[in-house]
Amino acid sequence: MTSIALLGTGLMGAPMAVCILKAGHTLAVWNRSMDKAAGLAAQGARVCATPAEAVAGADIVITMLADGPTVTSVLFAQGTAAALKTGSIVVDMSSIPPDIAREHAATLAAQGVLHLDAPVSGGTKGAAAGTLAIMAGGTEDAFARAKPVLESMGRPVLIGPSGTGQIAKLANQAIVGITIGAVAEALLLAAANGADPAKVREALTGGFADSMILKQHGQRMLDRAWAPGAPVKTQVKDLRTIMAAAKSAGLDLPIAARVTALYEDLLAEGYGNCDHSAYLLELEHINPGKRLGDKPDQMPT
Amino acid sequence: MTSIALLGTGLMGAPMAVCILKAGHTLAVWNRSMDKAAGLAAQGARVCATPAEAVAGADIVITMLADGPTVTSVLFAQGTAAALKTGSIVVDMSSIPPDIAREHAATLAAQGVLHLDAPVSGGTKGAAAGTLAIMAGGTEDAFARAKPVLESMGRPVLIGPSGTGQIAKLANQAIVGITIGAVAEALLLAAANGADPAKVREALTGGFADSMILKQHGQRMLDRAWAPGAPVKTQVKDLRTIMAAAKSAGLDLPIAARVTALYEDLLAEGYGNCDHSAYLLELEHINPGKRLGDKPDQMPT
Repeated sequence: MTSIALLGTGLMGAPMAVCILKAGHTLAVWNRSMDKAAGLAAQGARVCATPAEAVAGADIVITMLADGPTVTSVLFAQGTAAALKTGSIVVDMSSIPPDIAREHAATLAAQGVLHLDAPVSGGTKGAAAGTLAIMAGGTEDAFARAKPVLESMGRPVLIGPSGTGQIAKLANQAIVGITIGAVAEALLLAAANGADPAKVREALTGGFADSMILKQHGQRMLDRAWAPGAPVKTQVKDLRTIMAAAKSAGLDLPIAARVTALYEDLLAEGYGNCDHSAYLLELEHINPGKRLGDKPDQMPT
Repeated sequence: MTSIALLGTGLMGAPMAVCILKAGHTLAVWNRSMDKAAGLAAQGARVCATPAEAVAGADIVITMLADGPTVTSVLFAQGTAAALKTGSIVVDMSSIPPDIAREHAATLAAQGVLHLDAPVSGGTKGAAAGTLAIMAGGTEDAFARAKPVLESMGRPVLIGPSGTGQIAKLANQAIVGITIGAVAEALLLAAANGADPAKVREALTGGFADSMILKQHGQRMLDRAWAPGAPVKTQVKDLRTIMAAAKSAGLDLPIAARVTALYEDLLAEGYGNCDHSAYLLELEHINPGKRLGDKPDQMPT
């Protein structure tokens, strides 16, 4: 029985909050637009008007926010840090650049608050099922204390010191972005050569080409169902961070670079709010006249 | 109880033969170098000196050979086709170009023999476990008759008419080759930024980056264990067929093209007999001074 606060109850944060409540913890929630948090009251959460109110007295503060600047703002520009209990742990499950995560950890350490960067993979389905892959960076002590709560949301693994959870998430996103590209190319190749791409996807299951992306995003491509899921604009944000991390390490990652350029084009063409499986639209765009199947595109509302 | 012949008892064919025998079928086997087939005698197979001898009287003839020209030679230049029983089925489980598979089907049809192209994915582990993904092209009748035998080796799916099994395999290999590249880039990125790549691989399991390739080939990269598995030269053969199929369909597949060029370089540098996860060596080659871990390379013997 730990007292927990969760800041950010969007597409991911809301089902994560439900998992925490189901595990029997006391939970206070806050969201910038309060209507997204309101529904959690019926499930036992205390809905707060400010992040400072939510974190007061909490042992563990979870943040699940859009990007690095948002996390910085919510923690340090809205009175939240000042309201944190000494000895409490901030677990930032947002996906943000590793260097910003390390800055947050250092700033909080100065006031006696621990920090874990603990971004996730598995999407809204994984969040609802409590099966997220959770990649944690920080001290063993902080990880051990946060672990029971993290286990209510998925499978936490301590990667190493502060920032390495975010680095693991970059590795995750590089694989996700590239594998979406691989599945799009493979299905379009099969269709252009006269094979039924739905049968191809089915047949590939269980072989070496099998993956979460083939199963879930391959099906989205066949259905041309572009409501997110994870939007293109978020994938591009992650790919830009990947390219920056590669550059600062002096690394040439030729496939990630090619995929990033194509995702950037897709974003520039106005598809930022589509699910990232809409990479298929970019592949079709550079192949005029080619199209995977004849179903209509289902655009996000 | 069906009388079966299997031509080609190499890395894949030998464990497939064992699965067929375990299912209770009568099996005759042949291999170019007979020593590779000899061990199957103790498991109940009849070991034959020529392919013609093996196929005589067989209801179903399975071929598991290196490439298109080898299948053509074994079927049509060594007296094999003439020895086939009218009404029997040739199930070619080799990975060969779709147009050659269609030619074989047409030539055999003229003498009253059915043909399925039914290449597989899942590697030697999948072959040993009887869990191969089997992608079949041909008539529904031929598929229905061969299905019980195919099920002893894995999960068969009929994709469509003759050649479409091979097209599905090309889709499979495009995903496999690209995903190996994705895992190599992701692990090297993580290591270059100070995260333990073994922990990263472990943490990513269960998230959207999870795949057969991350699990098996990711581990090979961490161990730097380059004994195949599936060799680079075979992956290059498949990627060349993919590029040819894309070109003939007028398709630009930018990621597959980039990965093919890098695999071609790896082959040219003399790594053809390494497992295809040795793509990592090419990524390290274009990034002088960067290396995933400090274990020694385990080269194939």
